[in-house]
Amino acid sequence: MSRIVFLNGSFVPFEEAKIPVMDRGFLFADGIYEVAAVLDGRLVDNEAHLARLDRSLGEIRIRNPYSSAEWTRLEEELVRRNNLAEGLVYMEVTRGAAERDFAFPPADTPPTVVMFTQPKNIRHSPLAQTGIAVITVPDQRWKRRDIKSVGLLGQVLAKQAAVEAGVGDAWMVEDGYVTEGSSSTAFIITPEKRLITRPLSNAVLPGITRLAVMKLAKEAGLAVEERLFTVEEAHGAEEAFVTSASSIVMPVVAIDGKPVGTGRPGPLALRLRALYFELAEAPAKAA
Amino acid sequence: MSRIVFLNGSFVPFEEAKIPVMDRGFLFADGIYEVAAVLDGRLVDNEAHLARLDRSLGEIRIRNPYSSAEWTRLEEELVRRNNLAEGLVYMEVTRGAAERDFAFPPADTPPTVVMFTQPKNIRHSPLAQTGIAVITVPDQRWKRRDIKSVGLLGQVLAKQAAVEAGVGDAWMVEDGYVTEGSSSTAFIITPEKRLITRPLSNAVLPGITRLAVMKLAKEAGLAVEERLFTVEEAHGAEEAFVTSASSIVMPVVAIDGKPVGTGRPGPLALRLRALYFELAEAPAKAA
Repeated sequence: MSRIVFLNGSFVPFEEAKIPVMDRGFLFADGIYEVAAVLDGRLVDNEAHLARLDRSLGEIRIRNPYSSAEWTRLEEELVRRNNLAEGLVYMEVTRGAAERDFAFPPADTPPTVVMFTQPKNIRHSPLAQTGIAVITVPDQRWKRRDIKSVGLLGQVLAKQAAVEAGVGDAWMVEDGYVTEGSSSTAFIITPEKRLITRPLSNAVLPGITRLAVMKLAKEAGLAVEERLFTVEEAHGAEEAFVTSASSIVMPVVAIDGKPVGTGRPGPLALRLRALYFELAEAPAKAA
Repeated sequence: MSRIVFLNGSFVPFEEAKIPVMDRGFLFADGIYEVAAVLDGRLVDNEAHLARLDRSLGEIRIRNPYSSAEWTRLEEELVRRNNLAEGLVYMEVTRGAAERDFAFPPADTPPTVVMFTQPKNIRHSPLAQTGIAVITVPDQRWKRRDIKSVGLLGQVLAKQAAVEAGVGDAWMVEDGYVTEGSSSTAFIITPEKRLITRPLSNAVLPGITRLAVMKLAKEAGLAVEERLFTVEEAHGAEEAFVTSASSIVMPVVAIDGKPVGTGRPGPLALRLRALYFELAEAPAKAA
């Protein structure tokens, strides 16, 4: 079966999924995106992703071309056409194609909508067994990181620095404080067993999995604190992990070459990971 | 004659100039660009643009696909095929198309190269007769503005704010100091007739026209100072202007609704503009 991409209202073969060079996503990073996980052929926490997509569009004043119900129907159709059991749905909306000019194009310019799927081993990710190491790098990004824009060059360079350091991710640092991972939310657990993550602001993306995991942690009786934390505090953490739609809860076992706790995936991180998959399965069980 | 675009080694009709949705320019703003002016069918200060293009590529580690001589030949061919007498050549190079992943794609992934032209009335721009008004807006951009990346959403939002304020451009401000215009370098002339512009750093783009105009100003006997200046100092300036490859020297006649000097294009700005066109014509005269 050939790979199918959704492009501006049509399901087309991957090879035909092309956009004009005048697309503002290509010329100006004038667009936003979302990534939702698929487990057992079903979208995970999709309403929250669609709510964030709607907010991102609103913040940069691109009209949301679809209702939440329409998005869901199109995503499900794309998952079905690609026979995707486990992996990701990627969605991008740009301000459309128009003669190059920094100012917004005419109001009747239709947004560009692209969706594709990527198969990925999420539940039985080998990395989740070993955990990942991370390095810290300066956060070079713009000041509206709460918008999930496609202006991701800072994150690309951070992730590539991680790859070249032989580790799994980079935590970005501003004014001595960790902001977030290159495409994930950073968490630490203190020796006092308090779960710490940075509060929401313009400095970080409001993570969908972040929110779900914080809720699970509270329900499991863990003290959860939203506050800034320094690189030094992270180096002294008992556990650490990152969350994202594609990695769920990924244990972090070393930061800047220093082992975190025992240097193996922490029990609380693994417990939260297991709880998340239980939650994700719940609707299927209920059905 | 139909519009012709250069795309990955071929000259193709505009309608056929399309890139895969997996292009990293579209997914990650993982690319850089240049814009060079064309006057009388000839490229202006093109070697300097190509040097900056090479530097931008080097800073984000994309291989420059062409030598300076090859770029020039391709640009000239594009200008000829579009019968362009006056306007712009736009060049973009991205890290190519590959399965979506933040880390760099395999090293043998060919960069994407796009070039197109835009006709524009540069020399006899009506705006140069009246000057433009500007507003100041917070600079929201990333920390490597010396790289001419396609991650331009901050600039798009700044320019759109200007359009909606009914003015010609927005000057971006950080920590109280003007950084630059949304796609131009900001200059002021003090009541003491000193030409002020911000020094080069990671905070601003190293403007090609900026450099040429500073040289012309020095040759004309004007004192030129590279230093930070505040919004307040700009409000009290005797003259102001912006420079860019497409606007050359554009007088600024109001900042945040306050007239600059007389509220009409300043004599020094107009003199520098005239000197620039004399310089641009010089090679043709010499030939």
